[in-house]
Amino acid sequence: METLGYYNGIIGPLEELRIPMNDRACWFGDGVYDVSICAQYTIFALDEHIDRFFNSAALLYMTPRISKPELAELLNTLVRKLDSPTQFVYWQLTRGTAPRIHTFPEHTAPNLWVTLKPFTLPDIYGKIKLITVEDTRFFHCNIKTLNLLPNVLASEKAKQAGCAEAVFHRGNRVTECSHSNVYILKDGILRTAPLDNLILPGISRAHIIVQCGKLGIPVDETPFTMEELFAADEIMISSTSSFCMSASHLDGYQVGGKAPELLRQIQDALWTEFHQVTGSAL
Amino acid sequence: METLGYYNGIIGPLEELRIPMNDRACWFGDGVYDVSICAQYTIFALDEHIDRFFNSAALLYMTPRISKPELAELLNTLVRKLDSPTQFVYWQLTRGTAPRIHTFPEHTAPNLWVTLKPFTLPDIYGKIKLITVEDTRFFHCNIKTLNLLPNVLASEKAKQAGCAEAVFHRGNRVTECSHSNVYILKDGILRTAPLDNLILPGISRAHIIVQCGKLGIPVDETPFTMEELFAADEIMISSTSSFCMSASHLDGYQVGGKAPELLRQIQDALWTEFHQVTGSAL
Repeated sequence: METLGYYNGIIGPLEELRIPMNDRACWFGDGVYDVSICAQYTIFALDEHIDRFFNSAALLYMTPRISKPELAELLNTLVRKLDSPTQFVYWQLTRGTAPRIHTFPEHTAPNLWVTLKPFTLPDIYGKIKLITVEDTRFFHCNIKTLNLLPNVLASEKAKQAGCAEAVFHRGNRVTECSHSNVYILKDGILRTAPLDNLILPGISRAHIIVQCGKLGIPVDETPFTMEELFAADEIMISSTSSFCMSASHLDGYQVGGKAPELLRQIQDALWTEFHQVTGSAL
Repeated sequence: METLGYYNGIIGPLEELRIPMNDRACWFGDGVYDVSICAQYTIFALDEHIDRFFNSAALLYMTPRISKPELAELLNTLVRKLDSPTQFVYWQLTRGTAPRIHTFPEHTAPNLWVTLKPFTLPDIYGKIKLITVEDTRFFHCNIKTLNLLPNVLASEKAKQAGCAEAVFHRGNRVTECSHSNVYILKDGILRTAPLDNLILPGISRAHIIVQCGKLGIPVDETPFTMEELFAADEIMISSTSSFCMSASHLDGYQVGGKAPELLRQIQDALWTEFHQVTGSAL
């Protein structure tokens, strides 16, 4: 198959699959999701993504009908059905199918969705351009939910400006990006926002922090400001699909480029780990 | 028909209708909606609801494929297909059907959804219980979007507490409810939050303000506090489906009940208008 959609056990090409209009995703965005990348049919950091997925669900008072090992087995089986060994592996859980009413429905169980698409690994050493956007999102950003309108609007704004990502800030405090975490390198230290309800606990973020530990690079998880962002030696973003990339421009101004070797150490560590785990060629 | 679902021209019983998995409602809640009530097959304040719907869509850079008069005609035609003359009339617009990517898709047009269900008019003179909940929503509450998770969570919290609605507050400032606007009556004045990005411009809210003008009741649209809420002569909520109801309890404390005649004047005016417009019996 070229693409795959899965909905509560029904499988088909993603473009052809249909779901009940009364799935609560349709009326409320009432669900959570997670994403990983697979190479050589091996899904990277799958257990961590599944842990986060179950945690997101629990924070919204949802319990999947299958266990963590069963979900891992399902995903590992499904990726084998695709022609491409390198895939964008997406799954989500919605609260169920019921007539539209805000309160939780009583006689339904959560629905499990999976989508698989071929994926091309990015050139992580390339430079990207960023814009800054006021963070108008809700205060549940630690949960990976389907309520993504501000993220959609910020992403589109970045695209219209010829940029790859939008960096969110609440006033002067930098939080994260529309679908990435954000970091600065300054005076040999990696800085990134702390884990609270304003940012997603990124899996790549966790791996970067571990790799920095191995490399002896200090990590500072206290909030940083817009001024510190603009003045950084390097600005980095990370996500499951972009891994770890750095910026050349922010709101049209040249930024970063002052700590290329430190940056490269972190990128190499992350990139090597991905290829070692998935058994794919560097 | 007992219920009706409509999706881009396809019609069927709501429970049986299916939509493409790649509709952006499913991944991002990327859409807007509106709701009215019909009685005697007449949809109340339809033009106002359609105006707000087009405004919500425009604020998210979406343009329906049909004009306002065409949408009105479509809804007026569809309601005739239901057995029940009294209905909950819901419609929504989503950004289109395309592979999941945050930015706006380029080769798709918005999807139009309609759902119709029988509706029982509420006893608006009955008393309801309320709870208060910190308002953790995003800063686009003036747009009637499908990103409703905090509203869902607050509604469920109210239900668990044996209450009908949850009153949101940002710190000490009262905003609105999980699916209603909120008001206080104090010293003969009606107070409600101003129209900004923290509340929905309710159609019932607009009608209540007009009716207060006719009744000679002063209206103050400046923010009010939690203390003012608890100390109100009456606490009122309004929405399309609840019209205008008042509270007897807030967080378990007895509230209101100190201006029953003023309250009744407003409720009578709103209720009479609905029945006159729809030609339904009072």
